[in-house]
Amino acid sequence: MELLLLLDACRRADAARVTAVVPYFGYARQDRRNRAGESLGSRVVADAIAGAGADRLIVVDPHTKSLEAMCPIPVEVLTAVPELAAAGKRGLGEVVVVAPDLGAVKLAEHCAAPLRAPVAVVRKTRQTGSTVRAEELVGDVESKPVLIVDDMISTGGTIEAAAHVLLEHGALSGITVVAAHGLLVDPAADRLAALPLRSLFVTDSLAQRASAAFPLEVHSIAPLLADAIGRLHQNLSVDDLLARS
Amino acid sequence: MELLLLLDACRRADAARVTAVVPYFGYARQDRRNRAGESLGSRVVADAIAGAGADRLIVVDPHTKSLEAMCPIPVEVLTAVPELAAAGKRGLGEVVVVAPDLGAVKLAEHCAAPLRAPVAVVRKTRQTGSTVRAEELVGDVESKPVLIVDDMISTGGTIEAAAHVLLEHGALSGITVVAAHGLLVDPAADRLAALPLRSLFVTDSLAQRASAAFPLEVHSIAPLLADAIGRLHQNLSVDDLLARS
Amino acid sequence: MELLLLLDACRRADAARVTAVVPYFGYARQDRRNRAGESLGSRVVADAIAGAGADRLIVVDPHTKSLEAMCPIPVEVLTAVPELAAAGKRGLGEVVVVAPDLGAVKLAEHCAAPLRAPVAVVRKTRQTGSTVRAEELVGDVESKPVLIVDDMISTGGTIEAAAHVLLEHGALSGITVVAAHGLLVDPAADRLAALPLRSLFVTDSLAQRASAAFPLEVHSIAPLLADAIGRLHQNLSVDDLLARS
Amino acid sequence: MELLLLLDACRRADAARVTAVVPYFGYARQDRRNRAGESLGSRVVADAIAGAGADRLIVVDPHTKSLEAMCPIPVEVLTAVPELAAAGKRGLGEVVVVAPDLGAVKLAEHCAAPLRAPVAVVRKTRQTGSTVRAEELVGDVESKPVLIVDDMISTGGTIEAAAHVLLEHGALSGITVVAAHGLLVDPAADRLAALPLRSLFVTDSLAQRASAAFPLEVHSIAPLLADAIGRLHQNLSVDDLLARS
Amino acid sequence: MELLLLLDACRRADAARVTAVVPYFGYARQDRRNRAGESLGSRVVADAIAGAGADRLIVVDPHTKSLEAMCPIPVEVLTAVPELAAAGKRGLGEVVVVAPDLGAVKLAEHCAAPLRAPVAVVRKTRQTGSTVRAEELVGDVESKPVLIVDDMISTGGTIEAAAHVLLEHGALSGITVVAAHGLLVDPAADRLAALPLRSLFVTDSLAQRASAAFPLEVHSIAPLLADAIGRLHQNLSVDDLLARS
Amino acid sequence: MELLLLLDACRRADAARVTAVVPYFGYARQDRRNRAGESLGSRVVADAIAGAGADRLIVVDPHTKSLEAMCPIPVEVLTAVPELAAAGKRGLGEVVVVAPDLGAVKLAEHCAAPLRAPVAVVRKTRQTGSTVRAEELVGDVESKPVLIVDDMISTGGTIEAAAHVLLEHGALSGITVVAAHGLLVDPAADRLAALPLRSLFVTDSLAQRASAAFPLEVHSIAPLLADAIGRLHQNLSVDDLLARS
Repeated sequence: MELLLLLDACRRADAARVTAVVPYFGYARQDRRNRAGESLGSRVVADAIAGAGADRLIVVDPHTKSLEAMCPIPVEVLTAVPELAAAGKRGLGEVVVVAPDLGAVKLAEHCAAPLRAPVAVVRKTRQTGSTVRAEELVGDVESKPVLIVDDMISTGGTIEAAAHVLLEHGALSGITVVAAHGLLVDPAADRLAALPLRSLFVTDSLAQRASAAFPLEVHSIAPLLADAIGRLHQNLSVDDLLARS
Repeated sequence: MELLLLLDACRRADAARVTAVVPYFGYARQDRRNRAGESLGSRVVADAIAGAGADRLIVVDPHTKSLEAMCPIPVEVLTAVPELAAAGKRGLGEVVVVAPDLGAVKLAEHCAAPLRAPVAVVRKTRQTGSTVRAEELVGDVESKPVLIVDDMISTGGTIEAAAHVLLEHGALSGITVVAAHGLLVDPAADRLAALPLRSLFVTDSLAQRASAAFPLEVHSIAPLLADAIGRLHQNLSVDDLLARS
Repeated sequence: MELLLLLDACRRADAARVTAVVPYFGYARQDRRNRAGESLGSRVVADAIAGAGADRLIVVDPHTKSLEAMCPIPVEVLTAVPELAAAGKRGLGEVVVVAPDLGAVKLAEHCAAPLRAPVAVVRKTRQTGSTVRAEELVGDVESKPVLIVDDMISTGGTIEAAAHVLLEHGALSGITVVAAHGLLVDPAADRLAALPLRSLFVTDSLAQRASAAFPLEVHSIAPLLADAIGRLHQNLSVDDLLARS
Repeated sequence: MELLLLLDACRRADAARVTAVVPYFGYARQDRRNRAGESLGSRVVADAIAGAGADRLIVVDPHTKSLEAMCPIPVEVLTAVPELAAAGKRGLGEVVVVAPDLGAVKLAEHCAAPLRAPVAVVRKTRQTGSTVRAEELVGDVESKPVLIVDDMISTGGTIEAAAHVLLEHGALSGITVVAAHGLLVDPAADRLAALPLRSLFVTDSLAQRASAAFPLEVHSIAPLLADAIGRLHQNLSVDDLLARS
Repeated sequence: MELLLLLDACRRADAARVTAVVPYFGYARQDRRNRAGESLGSRVVADAIAGAGADRLIVVDPHTKSLEAMCPIPVEVLTAVPELAAAGKRGLGEVVVVAPDLGAVKLAEHCAAPLRAPVAVVRKTRQTGSTVRAEELVGDVESKPVLIVDDMISTGGTIEAAAHVLLEHGALSGITVVAAHGLLVDPAADRLAALPLRSLFVTDSLAQRASAAFPLEVHSIAPLLADAIGRLHQNLSVDDLLARS
Repeated sequence: MELLLLLDACRRADAARVTAVVPYFGYARQDRRNRAGESLGSRVVADAIAGAGADRLIVVDPHTKSLEAMCPIPVEVLTAVPELAAAGKRGLGEVVVVAPDLGAVKLAEHCAAPLRAPVAVVRKTRQTGSTVRAEELVGDVESKPVLIVDDMISTGGTIEAAAHVLLEHGALSGITVVAAHGLLVDPAADRLAALPLRSLFVTDSLAQRASAAFPLEVHSIAPLLADAIGRLHQNLSVDDLLARS
């Protein structure tokens, strides 16, 4: 809401061009209706931002893959995860990059390529003729340090389940997790505290409080945004800053 | 924001007609720019509500006088204050209805007419050649019970100043205050507790906590809204429920 | 209508930016519906101007307070009255600035401040238990020259009533009136001719005919508009030219 | 402008459906730019009508052929001229229907078919190597009564020129003219008074004053409009009431 | 469809300004509904082009006269026919420029003026009391070479009929035809092959295959478009490149 | 384009409500920009359909997951694949449902649930330190009949690669493939002919030619569409016809 007021103020003050920088794009998980009667929150927010006067939108690692097609104005979808992954890898040797669910596979591959690391995937699966769900690992993590990557950590449930699968499959303890956005809503702190985490890297897209319970490292997103804004201002390409999905 | 999502869900679920009922319309004070660089919050909110899929808007006693002209969809501006004023007057005999500033004069007159009561006005004034401001009373309250009416009470500053002026001019102690919306943000509770209030009537447009410090009476706005919605559904006139401004 | 055609021509001729300058914004009194079934003329006009291709609107002293919130494009609301008031005050000594009704109080205060003059207000009031309306004066004008200020003079009824109240309260005869827009529709000329006017100042926002019946002084609005347009062209602030409401 | 206010009032009063009936659609001649810098008046008016809240537009014999494609809302283009032509033909025997310029040929043919009458056309032509313009007649009117048909008569210049050509080519004196809209701006009255007119038929789409100078017959357009509105209300076809162009 | 995708790509790539150049504007004949239930194809296409992100549209000799009024963005309507006509006239001496139907008269006159040539018109006419239609010639072509001009040749039916009328009225054999757009759909090739054509000039707005059956000359439209784009880029007038209608 | 014209015709003919049924939504793969300079085809098409007058859109198994959030009007995303899968399973006993890439996993799970079948996934993977890509199988297909499901088959490359992986992992030969849309562009026919296909099920959303080269079975999509349209007409829920993604 404050963003909308700010955009309106810029427009009425006759700004030549208004770019909304929204590091964490909330409501991004609401990009389709799973049941009749649901709303499409990401579209509603995108329309409201455009309606209030933005000419362009910059976001970082949104959960929805198709944000730019939902938005009436041009969108630059930046990614902060490769840089976090590079930081997380330091001192680990030959890591395996792990996507904790299918939605994170493209992101994992995008991070793994510059690290020359293999990718493993954790997938929820259903056993024949029953309602039991189990996690399944695709790829080899035996005696390897692992680096879980995701766009965001909300309740920590996905990370917790993935960590257990990895350890069962022989991954070295001391798991590193990197995610662009650390929502860390309850019971994320408890879950993360209970895991053998080496470190958890997030950006400062959301304000983070220090916690003794788990080793949080917060990287500033400001250089990435500054770089993108600067290039756009000078009409340079931001292609290599963009997320791949 | 939740309202926007709800409207979107209704629209996508193919509702024949979507009416947004917004008893307390926030941001209504931002209806003009007092300095370059300000935003017009009430317009931003009105546009977002219409953009998310509402066909019609119902509000109660908004602070801005021109809400309907800011809104792309038809607006019914209801008023709950006359009913509150009638309740507040009970047992008081010949009251004087008081507008605590110039913006409340129309509302005061609208409430006073069915009560056959005179209207007095408190006005801020400036002394010649100085920056001192003083409150001035227009009308006669000598030895009379007074009924202050306003659309909302925010920090209580306006009510506090008006009450002092009324008492200085001989109004009977035991002041009654009626206002549609009780925001009561700090330091409203302290200010109200310090005044010789007989009672303070507000609606439940905003949730109210009981307070021992001042005599709060909360009237439900539901019958008013139900009446308006029922008439609109049956294509009857809501003319006598509308605010006059 | 001609304005709409002109805007359309500019837009189709590929103007980089189109600013509509509308010194007198008609229909501005229709900014809310007083009864079901009325239209909102000021919104209709604002939408039509924006729809025909204007990027920005400049108006002078519109009757409605919230014009900018009704208009989809940025609006600069200029005021010509302080300058008229300064001209009207010349040679009068210590004047009292008078708002002829409650709607003009903010304007009166805005004019009075640089003149270091007190403000008085005329207000229509209703007597208890009857339908008789009377005018009431708030402030002291005894033996003082008075300067009535308003945004426009239509039939002259408001000015006539205010003048009578002022004289009854002992104001010096030889009243000065300043108003941005002189519509002067019947019976304004007769009413003004019957008053003891020292002079009536209006701008040339509307064409004025000379009249022997009352002492009309027409000030050109062109310098104000030129100043505003020039500043906007050079991206300078117009803040001190804006109306306060 | 009054139409726009009326449409706005209907929309805000929550009309289920708003149809604008505009018998004479002004500005219809401005449907293309003949020079850079001109406006497209018919588009501006069409957009303003749709913007103010109309869902559908009904017009009668507009000058532009493509009004419906300019208008964002559905348009029914009715024609009153065939009925006027039938009235004008009464008592004349075997008439020749005359289009006074190329723009009226389709209309003339549409009127001539039910009358089983031939069509003649007057056309402005240019002589080789000079700037002299002359009128040329296509078709045979020798010793025949003629019936000139057009959508509107503005200054009467086209009719005057056509009448002279017809008389030069032997048409019987006592010319009948039918046109949907009688603007009759100066010097139309003088021109028509100077012609050997048998009668001039127009509709009451524009108010007409009686004139002794030429034999004006005004037919009410009300039955045509009532028929169209009634059919639309009952979802019947209006196909046979529509203009052909 | 490809144009729409291209426009979208330009807009999202943050182009400062997007001009769509559409030499042959298809669907242009659908500019009014001849029967209830038809669509307005030219409006649909114009809206889609504007909706996909074009700021301006350049077309060459569209069939509809009012394209610019149908289009929400500014349109420059260029004409290639005068240049083709000048080429077609070379070596012919004193030609007569012929409009093959009434819709082409303005175009014929626009071409004839710089050639200092007279204009003749072929018109379909209806005989009294029958359904027989015949072509009628207005103007004198006896023993003259003729130059037929039109905006486009579709099935060749109009040209074929006009050629027959011209030959019957004594025009010299060896007819020259110029048209901006050569659709030449069946049976155009057969019809043209059967006529005594001297040459047929079209532009390359549509791809043309060489044909032994009739003497086709294809002039490139590129210089005209380059000239227009260059002038628009430098904010020069394109007035003398525009079609007159 | 024909769809747009049809929608326009419906709207102008005053249809109470227009629903566009687009069984195969083309351009659906263009739902994000993989490089700067690309267009978002699915958004362009969705906007054009809404702009031409549709009130609602019905599609079947579109490639993009977020079509409804891209579209300004409500969208019902139906799925035909579960029914095809049920048909494909007949006579096969205990099948394994296979997603040929990660994008098809949700669809595979949606199909497998009612069949009480396990799901396997083929995934492209990258070997550490090289650019070689290989297909990897997740799940067990040893000695089992397999049922590959996808939303569409374009060139057949994905199906071909998946089939090879399945056979390498011991799946029974005689693979069944089901896909909603059979584009089958070159070299799909050659690829499919070279595979040991038991049968290939597609709907008639796209016209199919009989082919001796591979066993194609075409199921009509008409009952699904009829069911959905009927329910929408009667305001019943279509929830169980909707795709899950």
